[in-house]
Amino acid sequence: MGEPLVVESRVRVRYAETDAEGVVYYANHFVYMEVGRVNYFRSLGFDPAALDRSGRGIVILEARCRYHSPARFDDPLLIRAWVDQVRRSSFEFGYEIWHEAEERLVAEARTVQVIVDLASMRPIRIPQEMREAMTAAQGP
Amino acid sequence: MGEPLVVESRVRVRYAETDAEGVVYYANHFVYMEVGRVNYFRSLGFDPAALDRSGRGIVILEARCRYHSPARFDDPLLIRAWVDQVRRSSFEFGYEIWHEAEERLVAEARTVQVIVDLASMRPIRIPQEMREAMTAAQGP
Amino acid sequence: MGEPLVVESRVRVRYAETDAEGVVYYANHFVYMEVGRVNYFRSLGFDPAALDRSGRGIVILEARCRYHSPARFDDPLLIRAWVDQVRRSSFEFGYEIWHEAEERLVAEARTVQVIVDLASMRPIRIPQEMREAMTAAQGP
Amino acid sequence: MGEPLVVESRVRVRYAETDAEGVVYYANHFVYMEVGRVNYFRSLGFDPAALDRSGRGIVILEARCRYHSPARFDDPLLIRAWVDQVRRSSFEFGYEIWHEAEERLVAEARTVQVIVDLASMRPIRIPQEMREAMTAAQGP
Repeated sequence: MGEPLVVESRVRVRYAETDAEGVVYYANHFVYMEVGRVNYFRSLGFDPAALDRSGRGIVILEARCRYHSPARFDDPLLIRAWVDQVRRSSFEFGYEIWHEAEERLVAEARTVQVIVDLASMRPIRIPQEMREAMTAAQGP
Repeated sequence: MGEPLVVESRVRVRYAETDAEGVVYYANHFVYMEVGRVNYFRSLGFDPAALDRSGRGIVILEARCRYHSPARFDDPLLIRAWVDQVRRSSFEFGYEIWHEAEERLVAEARTVQVIVDLASMRPIRIPQEMREAMTAAQGP
Repeated sequence: MGEPLVVESRVRVRYAETDAEGVVYYANHFVYMEVGRVNYFRSLGFDPAALDRSGRGIVILEARCRYHSPARFDDPLLIRAWVDQVRRSSFEFGYEIWHEAEERLVAEARTVQVIVDLASMRPIRIPQEMREAMTAAQGP
Repeated sequence: MGEPLVVESRVRVRYAETDAEGVVYYANHFVYMEVGRVNYFRSLGFDPAALDRSGRGIVILEARCRYHSPARFDDPLLIRAWVDQVRRSSFEFGYEIWHEAEERLVAEARTVQVIVDLASMRPIRIPQEMREAMTAAQGP
């Protein structure tokens, strides 16, 4: 039995991302997820900027995050990203963010997104090549 | 029969909050929710900065957002925020973000949060006065 | 003798804008300046979003800021913005950011910008109507 | 004759950092400079988070940036950072941001900063060890 592809990305917490509580501000975890999502597509062989240049874009329909423990300035974070579901026009990503040195879960998250035509902002079918690559990466 | 208190806040979309798709980047809706949450406490008579100064803070445990339609640079947004549940140490906020001029729903969201002691980052009981004010504001 | 037009904008510091030192992160003052700049154009009768829709945009060539005192969460800030110089294709803004309640200077700043054609990102002449309005607003 | 130490950092432009013009928003270059500054201290053997933990912090007094060319989503950026001047309590950093693949200068910048006692936010003398390391790194 195969395993789904999980793509790992690493970031260091920037001072800009912290807030007056001394920890990463809760909206910034969604930026880390973006880093994971972009590297996921890169690992499948897609140029992340190419979609944009073709007049299409990814639009998030739904995003949620459960925060397990705080991350602080300069913490080494590991972002794990995988594809959970691929539908006709939408697909779902799962994520985990870990404090890598402390092997501590920082957050678990999920996003649902569609591909849109940027001129109309309307969803279009997932490009065939992208759908196939994501489906294959989900494993059997 | 009473109605729960819904506090309305208004923001204009800043250029900084848009992304290369020409719309508000999906993490920034969580910043708008913060504006709504802070004004909610202000409307109950609490100084939003006082909690911090007393060595306590609000930590988000869970956040989710459903994006209904895009918001663009300079759009006038109306953020509606209310308290949904008050438990011993956690409480839940509901939000709606509207494009005010177009009377169009931009996003619906929800956050669960706790009050923590900032030194230990551990949850404490919601201060009595704050709990009572939130409970009363929920309506009968 | 006339005085140059100074447009005032008001913002409250958001938690998202603070950092682990408990004060506004130094890059965010540039976002406040944007708020001032946008309201300046609005006060001259220009729709800030119209430039974008016409395929043109404002690009910053130079930005500098001197930080005089810290701003903290929920501080009421007053942003003063004015036009200092209008050249053929570039123009200069001056700014002051004040803690309004404490009448304390937070920052002084300056930006130089051009109007560009967004397709080529090349500077174009400042639209006649905008140049005239800015020149008149500078005072005699 | 020696050369000053120049520390290089690499980042990829995140979607979050772009704006509706399709390029990196002008305040975010200051975040990239922070990445360069932090790695500079790391390369001198200082733990960037240690200063904070000791109740001291770096506060920016002055920041300026000249923007030479735009950076776009997913562009590979190279940040070069060096120390220009070390005074009793303040010191100056110089920066260049390059589009690494295109060998194109994106921005040149400069910041002046002090070390402060975080409780009072007042400048203190640069810790001896840090001053010596920066002075040595400037070259002869």
